Amino acid sequence: MSAELDLVPAGLVRAVEALPLVDHHVHGASAKDLSRKAFEEMITESDRPVPEWMTQFDSQVGYAILRHCAPVLGLEPHCAPEEYLARRARLGTDEVNRLLLGASGVGHFLVETGYRGDEILGPSGMAELAGVPADEVVRLEAVAERVAATGCDAAAFAGRFAEELWERSRTARGLKTIAAYRHGLDFDPAPPGREEVTEAAGRWLAAGGGRLDDPVLLRHLIWTGLERGLPLQFHIGYGDPDVDLRRSDPLLLRGLIERAEPTGVPLLLLHCYPYQRHAGLLAHAYPNVYFDVGLGLNYSGARSAALVAESLEVAPFAKVLFSSDAWGPAELHYLGAHLWRRAMERVLGAFVDEGEWSLAQAVRVASMVGAENARRVYDLGADA
Amino acid sequence: MSAELDLVPAGLVRAVEALPLVDHHVHGASAKDLSRKAFEEMITESDRPVPEWMTQFDSQVGYAILRHCAPVLGLEPHCAPEEYLARRARLGTDEVNRLLLGASGVGHFLVETGYRGDEILGPSGMAELAGVPADEVVRLEAVAERVAATGCDAAAFAGRFAEELWERSRTARGLKTIAAYRHGLDFDPAPPGREEVTEAAGRWLAAGGGRLDDPVLLRHLIWTGLERGLPLQFHIGYGDPDVDLRRSDPLLLRGLIERAEPTGVPLLLLHCYPYQRHAGLLAHAYPNVYFDVGLGLNYSGARSAALVAESLEVAPFAKVLFSSDAWGPAELHYLGAHLWRRAMERVLGAFVDEGEWSLAQAVRVASMVGAENARRVYDLGADA
Amino acid sequence: MSAELDLVPAGLVRAVEALPLVDHHVHGASAKDLSRKAFEEMITESDRPVPEWMTQFDSQVGYAILRHCAPVLGLEPHCAPEEYLARRARLGTDEVNRLLLGASGVGHFLVETGYRGDEILGPSGMAELAGVPADEVVRLEAVAERVAATGCDAAAFAGRFAEELWERSRTARGLKTIAAYRHGLDFDPAPPGREEVTEAAGRWLAAGGGRLDDPVLLRHLIWTGLERGLPLQFHIGYGDPDVDLRRSDPLLLRGLIERAEPTGVPLLLLHCYPYQRHAGLLAHAYPNVYFDVGLGLNYSGARSAALVAESLEVAPFAKVLFSSDAWGPAELHYLGAHLWRRAMERVLGAFVDEGEWSLAQAVRVASMVGAENARRVYDLGADA
Repeated sequence: MSAELDLVPAGLVRAVEALPLVDHHVHGASAKDLSRKAFEEMITESDRPVPEWMTQFDSQVGYAILRHCAPVLGLEPHCAPEEYLARRARLGTDEVNRLLLGASGVGHFLVETGYRGDEILGPSGMAELAGVPADEVVRLEAVAERVAATGCDAAAFAGRFAEELWERSRTARGLKTIAAYRHGLDFDPAPPGREEVTEAAGRWLAAGGGRLDDPVLLRHLIWTGLERGLPLQFHIGYGDPDVDLRRSDPLLLRGLIERAEPTGVPLLLLHCYPYQRHAGLLAHAYPNVYFDVGLGLNYSGARSAALVAESLEVAPFAKVLFSSDAWGPAELHYLGAHLWRRAMERVLGAFVDEGEWSLAQAVRVASMVGAENARRVYDLGADA
Repeated sequence: MSAELDLVPAGLVRAVEALPLVDHHVHGASAKDLSRKAFEEMITESDRPVPEWMTQFDSQVGYAILRHCAPVLGLEPHCAPEEYLARRARLGTDEVNRLLLGASGVGHFLVETGYRGDEILGPSGMAELAGVPADEVVRLEAVAERVAATGCDAAAFAGRFAEELWERSRTARGLKTIAAYRHGLDFDPAPPGREEVTEAAGRWLAAGGGRLDDPVLLRHLIWTGLERGLPLQFHIGYGDPDVDLRRSDPLLLRGLIERAEPTGVPLLLLHCYPYQRHAGLLAHAYPNVYFDVGLGLNYSGARSAALVAESLEVAPFAKVLFSSDAWGPAELHYLGAHLWRRAMERVLGAFVDEGEWSLAQAVRVASMVGAENARRVYDLGADA
Repeated sequence: MSAELDLVPAGLVRAVEALPLVDHHVHGASAKDLSRKAFEEMITESDRPVPEWMTQFDSQVGYAILRHCAPVLGLEPHCAPEEYLARRARLGTDEVNRLLLGASGVGHFLVETGYRGDEILGPSGMAELAGVPADEVVRLEAVAERVAATGCDAAAFAGRFAEELWERSRTARGLKTIAAYRHGLDFDPAPPGREEVTEAAGRWLAAGGGRLDDPVLLRHLIWTGLERGLPLQFHIGYGDPDVDLRRSDPLLLRGLIERAEPTGVPLLLLHCYPYQRHAGLLAHAYPNVYFDVGLGLNYSGARSAALVAESLEVAPFAKVLFSSDAWGPAELHYLGAHLWRRAMERVLGAFVDEGEWSLAQAVRVASMVGAENARRVYDLGADA
């Protein structure tokens, strides 16, 4: 063990390793065999082909896979990518998924099903594979697009969307919006009027439905979601090239946060990199705002403790959550949990070692961020 | 003592602990007894009630109080909040204030009196309690609102405001503007014309005066303040939910900074979190710009060294100051000074330990930032 | 050696110290003798006189010079500024330049010649002084301004500019634009039409040519540069007071990056402070985007490892480069390389020490960032 980790109090390491995490925003694992090309294209947020003069393994997430996933598959840490992928192929995807999800120590998954859901496992597949509960988070835009795809006229859209949303979210634990991708967060925070919605729906449906990016409709989805009353997740910051990062700063949500405050609906800011300090300030100021630094942890690998540290500055500890945002290779599900544990051990361990916090406080905060806050917000009941 | 602090050169610790700081932006301490509810609501910038499912003690500032203030009141570090508050009540507010202000080692307070001044001590109360000089910093908007409250017509406003400002600031050391709260820093940097001011004053006074948030009047206050010629403080960044953080980025002040440069008036950017690097760049580029990272230190507790480190990147060391921005519980006055000292010891100590700086350079910079720069800017004379 | 550097694996230190760096964006060294005033004015990005109440030596770059350059000139580390400057004068500028450039261990310079080129050495002077190859990077705006200065009518401008650009860049390795200084990066990303260009050129030339800041012409220069096909460097972020930092955020380039993607021209984001994380996200998302954290390293001195660490979060390691952006005193050329080496040793050494990376991975990434990526992008051939 390294010089630095030697300084982490053993009691903290034991407590954090034993935590049954709630991964409050995750997608399904891929059950398919993956070629090297396919694998490399799934360990980046970029949707571009990996240029021939580089390998995606030469990145923080690549090195983290070779370091941390390799031992789970029975290899030495820091093995070569070829060796890793050969071992992966030999074990088969089922076994790889079982090993990695099992090792993650996640106790409850909240699975967002709206992104290329046919290529990956759904909540029940995840529950079966991991042997722990997996509930659904429903993506608002996907519901609306399904309504359009099944045929709907403009005047009926609002009603049909509400009906479908209530139906689809009957057993769901939360909702999610990707307005940041589809328009940016710089939208008018007020709920649109009924006529405006019908008019916008008319334009959208006349153009064939499909990708919903009209800001009036996006606002309508969000406000209908707030009426539905389940915790509402927002994509924030970092993502694939489809997102304009300048328009995904969470500070743009201030108007909506204030208007939504009386509804009592928890608003959960996801990922947030590189705006984690902005998210922390909102969580400090507004009782209805929560956030996590998922996604960023996987992609920053050896630097993930720095992100976790920035997330523990001004937000009250009851407002910070854990997620992996993993999609596809189960390596991302495992790393999300594993890198978070290592980062919390280092960051909180340093607070203890420097005499700033007690060990009990460190264990308490790890438990709040890793599981308790999500259990309270999503009403998951006590730890199974 | 922790492993890390062991590495801080003893000479640096001694020098920093002995520094009689100038707290160049602070408010009065509260002389009232505080219930747990009242206390928790004063150790956050949020103006919302603390939700029943959390306590404000589960935060960096909460843990910092239990760690650092508890021993000043004769308790063990990391005690329970209940124990802390019970001890606080038993000692009585006067004694608590005396203990905490005494332990802060502040040698000179510059007290900004414009925020809920009737609930807290003024400069003379602070001077008496702490046994050190306390001078005033006058808030421009408060002066203007008093002029309106006493009855004034539009045409007379500019003259009456100037008169009142000169009178109120006769012995003051500085002025302060909260244009960031009232409008945002994205205002026209040019001084408004006399007619514009009269017209805007007419609208404002006709509406009954009160909260001044008209951008023409805010600009007029700032430009009158520049004529007055005292160092001018700007609220920047982090604050209560009233501030739109996107509009409190100090980079928005570039136009004003350039126009104000010929006046020779020092412009002091306060708090700055999360924009401390932006403030540092302005202090690097413009001779009339200074900044501090007060407020952020208290609320980031165990992470405050990270903020101090970011404030010591590109700004010349003659341009960085210390403040606590404390308001209310004397815990915040003590912590502001104490966390700054610890952070400087760690950050500068690491520079020395890594062989980058000499011990003499570290002591010199601590002394500049903690006291000398403020003494020069505010013309406070030599250390008492 | 310090406690921290003791932890850096010796193999990594040896490998990094031995790397013949490619400084992919640098200006010439000054061959003139420099008074203290001139020297202090050259070790800041500010173009204002240094105020009489401070010295520029009281800054990170000042302390870095006294720490790291002093031994190269035969002095003790942390000497007094007076002693340093006296030694410098005694040795003479030629010898100082030879010593500092020699000690930098740079193996190839790409010299941008467009800024006050008559006051400093050109590529051949740099090659001669350092004894290593030095190629040119041509500044687009400087070429256009030369075309205007030699007399040109509006209709002929586009043709004359293209002709001159091809001629001037015959042996160049790259192009550079300072649109961030001249307008901001918030320009329309589309190439302007021929008529628009002629009209804008007409306005500019009628006004006497000179400083080119018309956004239509700046876009025209960039798109002509993309046609020329050499790697294209962009000033980003931090610079002298001429730049509006709010308008130099690299995220503003998203539209241009996407439109330029089919050209296959590498786009290189320079400096980037304080937006290095934004640059990393663009380099992650887009195959045609690269970046460095030059300039910021010199000016943040003892804090430069923090910047390097932030640059190694989400970008693939094949997309990060090294530069010094030095201009004038050879101290800046030396420090750019030296502080980068120290920072890489610390940051990568910590990854190894913490068990996150293997030593081989650390050496590989140092070599990619320090030299190999630039050799590939600029087609410099194998290491001499």
